[in-house]
Amino acid sequence: MENQGDLRSLLEQKSALYWQDYIPHISIDCVVFGFHDATLKVLLLKVKDQDRWGLPGGYMGKHEDMNQAAARILQERTGAEDIFLQQFSVFSELNRSEDFFQEYPDTLWHKQRFISVGFYALVDYTEVIPVPDELSSACEWKDIENLPALMMDHQKILLEALETLRRQLNYKPIGYNLLPAEFTMPELQKLYEIILGKKLNRGNFYRKMLAYDILDKLEEPRKGGAHKAPNLYKFNMEKYENALRHGFKEGW
Amino acid sequence: MENQGDLRSLLEQKSALYWQDYIPHISIDCVVFGFHDATLKVLLLKVKDQDRWGLPGGYMGKHEDMNQAAARILQERTGAEDIFLQQFSVFSELNRSEDFFQEYPDTLWHKQRFISVGFYALVDYTEVIPVPDELSSACEWKDIENLPALMMDHQKILLEALETLRRQLNYKPIGYNLLPAEFTMPELQKLYEIILGKKLNRGNFYRKMLAYDILDKLEEPRKGGAHKAPNLYKFNMEKYENALRHGFKEGW
Repeated sequence: MENQGDLRSLLEQKSALYWQDYIPHISIDCVVFGFHDATLKVLLLKVKDQDRWGLPGGYMGKHEDMNQAAARILQERTGAEDIFLQQFSVFSELNRSEDFFQEYPDTLWHKQRFISVGFYALVDYTEVIPVPDELSSACEWKDIENLPALMMDHQKILLEALETLRRQLNYKPIGYNLLPAEFTMPELQKLYEIILGKKLNRGNFYRKMLAYDILDKLEEPRKGGAHKAPNLYKFNMEKYENALRHGFKEGW
Repeated sequence: MENQGDLRSLLEQKSALYWQDYIPHISIDCVVFGFHDATLKVLLLKVKDQDRWGLPGGYMGKHEDMNQAAARILQERTGAEDIFLQQFSVFSELNRSEDFFQEYPDTLWHKQRFISVGFYALVDYTEVIPVPDELSSACEWKDIENLPALMMDHQKILLEALETLRRQLNYKPIGYNLLPAEFTMPELQKLYEIILGKKLNRGNFYRKMLAYDILDKLEEPRKGGAHKAPNLYKFNMEKYENALRHGFKEGW
């Protein structure tokens, strides 16, 4: 059975190495949203010896830039590679993390004041193989509607990432890698509804999505089923990539 | 006449104080766009003894959060108060700033590796009284179409801020404090065109702007002038503030 001493000795052991390898005062937290089976999930790690969970996070190496560090952290802590993470905000409140290590000596790496840069990604969760890191006893997908208690300001970071993801739906395409190669309009609408956490009007959704001009309609509707066969669409990857880079045509 | 020695002795003089008061490795750069007389400008400082300009910037005090630091920096370096700055990105490339201080001793505060957090704002430029700081010989508004040579990666930071401002037009209202209280639709369209750096279709602009539902049309058109009197509008501040916080209704 684990006890508080395990985490403590691990932290103290790591501290000197951290001071040597990483840039002080700067940390990174990753909010990785997973979409699967019509639910939105987020990847969390359970802190050893504690009943609290946290976002996958870490520090910036002295020879890395921030994007390299974020990619490495996510790879180290979750086994996930090649996930495109996007910076979204900096979290800098006084005592946002310091109190968490109150009982530890002041020289502990983790006890310094950290300014944390938040990154987020939305991925097909089957691409990720969650692996707990050395300070964690578990790494799991948690349903966004039913989150466990989070440490420090991780709840705030998570909610701000979700808000950013939702806002992103207004100017960037989404769906590639989250839907099958060929999909119906109701399937695409369902994806938007799950991310937004609300129902959308069917007619408006069709009109607006078609105006974005990133879909190709297939000649053959979906086969099978008793009802009228629904039309199938796929993303036009050239237009999709272009919209990813420059935003939708529909913008100003 | 100024010479290189002035800047050098100033920097070396300040260095110890900076180590004492600020959090190492973290800097802040502010991109302040000014709108006036139908042009878009940006606030820049001329580095003492050099023919290069830079963004108003500084460091984060040990007892400040990042927003407080950004507000203080802008106030100290430009005399401008109460400007709402928005964080937009973190700049972390290796050697983004270190090389600039190559000839100085390694212990110089300014020579350490800095990860810089970018903030931007769009203001009526008459609200700002530019004041050069101690490391600068001038503080001036420069036309966005005709920028001088910028130091370090400040050109990149500036362009990324401009891109963010343009994207923001897709989900947030703009114009309050930049236009007179009552304005015509062509005047509002002109503001958008100047920020976007391109012409917009008149009919589309009207349709889209009215759909945002943040304008009240005044009963009386503008008086005077030989032509048909144009309709006047003003922002409905309740709807405007709401859209600022939650994005446009037109979003998903």
